[in-house]
Amino acid sequence: MAKSNKAARPSPRLPKGLRDIEAAELRAQSSMIDKIRAVYERYGFEPLETPAFEYTDALGKFLPDQDRPNEGVFSLQDDDEQWLSLRYDLTAPLARYVAQNFQTLPKPFRRYAVGSVWRNEKPGPGRFRQFLQCDADTVGADSVAADAEMCMLAADTLEALGLKDGAVVKINSRKVLDGVLESIGIDPAADSDAKKRLVALRAIDKLDRLGPEGVSLLLGKGRKDESGDFTEGAGLAPQAIDKVLKFVTSGSGDDSLRAVESVIKDSAIGREGVTELIEIERLVAAAGYERNRIGFDPSIVRGLEYYTGPVFEVDLTLPIKSESGEPVRMGSVGSGGRYDDLVARFTGQKVPATGFSIGVSRLQAALHALGQVDKSAAGPVIVTVMEKERIADYQKMVQTLRAADIRAELYLGNPKKFGKQLEYADKRGSPCVVIQGSDEREKGEVTLKDLIEGAKAAKEIEGHEAWKEARPAQVSVKETDLVKEVKKILARHGL
Amino acid sequence: MAKSNKAARPSPRLPKGLRDIEAAELRAQSSMIDKIRAVYERYGFEPLETPAFEYTDALGKFLPDQDRPNEGVFSLQDDDEQWLSLRYDLTAPLARYVAQNFQTLPKPFRRYAVGSVWRNEKPGPGRFRQFLQCDADTVGADSVAADAEMCMLAADTLEALGLKDGAVVKINSRKVLDGVLESIGIDPAADSDAKKRLVALRAIDKLDRLGPEGVSLLLGKGRKDESGDFTEGAGLAPQAIDKVLKFVTSGSGDDSLRAVESVIKDSAIGREGVTELIEIERLVAAAGYERNRIGFDPSIVRGLEYYTGPVFEVDLTLPIKSESGEPVRMGSVGSGGRYDDLVARFTGQKVPATGFSIGVSRLQAALHALGQVDKSAAGPVIVTVMEKERIADYQKMVQTLRAADIRAELYLGNPKKFGKQLEYADKRGSPCVVIQGSDEREKGEVTLKDLIEGAKAAKEIEGHEAWKEARPAQVSVKETDLVKEVKKILARHGL
Repeated sequence: MAKSNKAARPSPRLPKGLRDIEAAELRAQSSMIDKIRAVYERYGFEPLETPAFEYTDALGKFLPDQDRPNEGVFSLQDDDEQWLSLRYDLTAPLARYVAQNFQTLPKPFRRYAVGSVWRNEKPGPGRFRQFLQCDADTVGADSVAADAEMCMLAADTLEALGLKDGAVVKINSRKVLDGVLESIGIDPAADSDAKKRLVALRAIDKLDRLGPEGVSLLLGKGRKDESGDFTEGAGLAPQAIDKVLKFVTSGSGDDSLRAVESVIKDSAIGREGVTELIEIERLVAAAGYERNRIGFDPSIVRGLEYYTGPVFEVDLTLPIKSESGEPVRMGSVGSGGRYDDLVARFTGQKVPATGFSIGVSRLQAALHALGQVDKSAAGPVIVTVMEKERIADYQKMVQTLRAADIRAELYLGNPKKFGKQLEYADKRGSPCVVIQGSDEREKGEVTLKDLIEGAKAAKEIEGHEAWKEARPAQVSVKETDLVKEVKKILARHGL
Repeated sequence: MAKSNKAARPSPRLPKGLRDIEAAELRAQSSMIDKIRAVYERYGFEPLETPAFEYTDALGKFLPDQDRPNEGVFSLQDDDEQWLSLRYDLTAPLARYVAQNFQTLPKPFRRYAVGSVWRNEKPGPGRFRQFLQCDADTVGADSVAADAEMCMLAADTLEALGLKDGAVVKINSRKVLDGVLESIGIDPAADSDAKKRLVALRAIDKLDRLGPEGVSLLLGKGRKDESGDFTEGAGLAPQAIDKVLKFVTSGSGDDSLRAVESVIKDSAIGREGVTELIEIERLVAAAGYERNRIGFDPSIVRGLEYYTGPVFEVDLTLPIKSESGEPVRMGSVGSGGRYDDLVARFTGQKVPATGFSIGVSRLQAALHALGQVDKSAAGPVIVTVMEKERIADYQKMVQTLRAADIRAELYLGNPKKFGKQLEYADKRGSPCVVIQGSDEREKGEVTLKDLIEGAKAAKEIEGHEAWKEARPAQVSVKETDLVKEVKKILARHGL
């Protein structure tokens, strides 16, 4: 038996960066996930669940922020000394799964996954170390039709969540970006230029946050931020920086993709990238998606090192305000792209793949700020305890209500003070309480108290005496009519 | 970019004791969880999600098998050197949550949780290191009505899963067991007898597996198992062993609970336990549960050290056979009980609590063996690619089908060999493929191939020529009727 030794008592606290998710938020989350899942299913993806952790070497290191000192994953050692890591995304475990089961899988292999991922990063406001992702991936398809489909999937998912006109899927291509870099003398295939390329891509990725001036510094000598921290730059010459900036700020107008062609015309990989993006634009247009839902944007980079072709992200276009009314920058709520080398890590064989991932928590925060969340469920009907020795009778009423599919429970606290029971019902958001004291019992009746109606009436009636007189929103009904009468009250409030 | 270096290639493998869950099993699991969740909601429990790991000291050590050398949890160190552990059940995190939020919670606090838990134990057949639990708990209610409700919840959950007549909730009480031990001289409150008590309880817990002889050895001098491993016994005298055995094998007949009273009549705690069990029996009987669904069983112990009052477990009564036809012992598929000291670990304040937990994976295995699982979802309609340059047209057909809420996808592999496309459709369990070559295109038609009907016909038609002649289960329809005609085929197969 657990003994409570005062000296050794642990403090009840959450590890930093982790959180509990309570009923209202959890219900809204479930409802979101159901909608996302329905779209993924409609697209023909099959669900797959991989475990929370993997061998560290099998996961690899493909975290978005590889410039952090910490590797960003939570790792532990098994009893046979092998290192395990909690998954930091759902793509790395997918690559392991595909490599392991390659022979038997249908090809292309299309799967979706809903699951928590963990990052050992510095937590911040709205930035947690465990969060939920919903991913869809097509593995074994090199056609850009697969990338185009991912963009449509993203657009349809947003529509299912009520954001058809409130979000946009922005596409770019790693190949186009490499073409731009090649045009200023960075060879995307040369190991010697790899670091410079990465620093430049990361710099471009920050356009949204730092503006052209900030990006310009990061492409050049480096940048000191407000806190005084210095980030080393890519060391590009001013002319090269201009060329890159001109490209990434060229906007997403109707003809911008054609305009890009002139910048990268001398780069084979750049031309390939543009051709692919034009094909994607053609496919999504033919399928009826307007440019305000899916369109080219030269500033999109995406942090993950493993992308090899088209990349895209989902940005909200609706203005979002914090609870204090300040405008909030949400960042992207989803992203994806083509990664052709992830399975090859295991097998040596190149397996083309493309995928899309939704950041559920961030999107939920946005939907919440927009007031677009489902109402939380109504609380249960509470059957109160008036005569303690008659608990069996009250419990039976509860079971009768439940059998009629009505959410109900017996008050299980100490029943001595009736006021406590009503307080409890209030706190639970109960629409109605059931009361049977000796008076009602003798008449074969129960009293039903409509708490929602009662709360309204309470605002109108002044004084305790007048209240007692009126007994608002309270009816006595035959006990045999319990289910029928409770249903009436629930129906009155649309429950 | 990820370079695949042959020398450094990791092997794609799962850590031991972990597994991937694929589509069919995952769908069956979702359907199960939806049903369980609906019952928990109907009972008025609110959902709560706590994170996957906690501070190790906050979790405590309440694992069922504390006699194992390994502590049974997966632990890791945060960057500030604090120890974290993956949760091994959902109750320990609940205790932390309640202690942390005690002031603001409604009391009693009723929550349910669905989540993975991790155990660092030796894996075995059907015994994994990550598995799913569905728990409901009522915290802050000392009334046995709360325990009785848990038993009803268990019975209703089994009914919702189609096992109304295939499972039984067996109840006992730690207090009754302590009463029996007290009657043979083991003081349940004395620290000096704590170890002996635990060894005796664990011995009784094995009745089901080892029979009376095995338990008798474990209560006495100890037992050597088949592999030669010796387990030390409780060292009780033969007379004491007889008394315990007589109790635990006294069966669960109508009057067995009254019979027990005579055994433990000299133990205050034992009498208290019997009184509580009688009250539980009265409550569940009043609510209409027959004894074959919820009933007393003196052999129930439950391994968890933290139980303090009524304990119960859910056992399947239907005979279960393995795929080779052998009878299988499933063990319990759910369990619960009263634990009054878990929150006190943090606060020093005793908070009475009672709960129920379903082992989802084990129950699912049982339902699977009983053939009581939902059919897996139908595969998507596959739109094939006949003319490669017309991908946009095909993709548009797919989007048209999806807009009509039909699961559909474009074949995204290499379309050169048409046979590969049909093979893919087969492998995906597709009910129907859509074909439009130049012939159909010129006539504004599409060909629909009913794969389910086709598979049936294939068994009846002999020879390739006859097959080509008959073109079974294949129709050409106007392209504008695509949705209508596909729906006809789906309807034909009840999809």
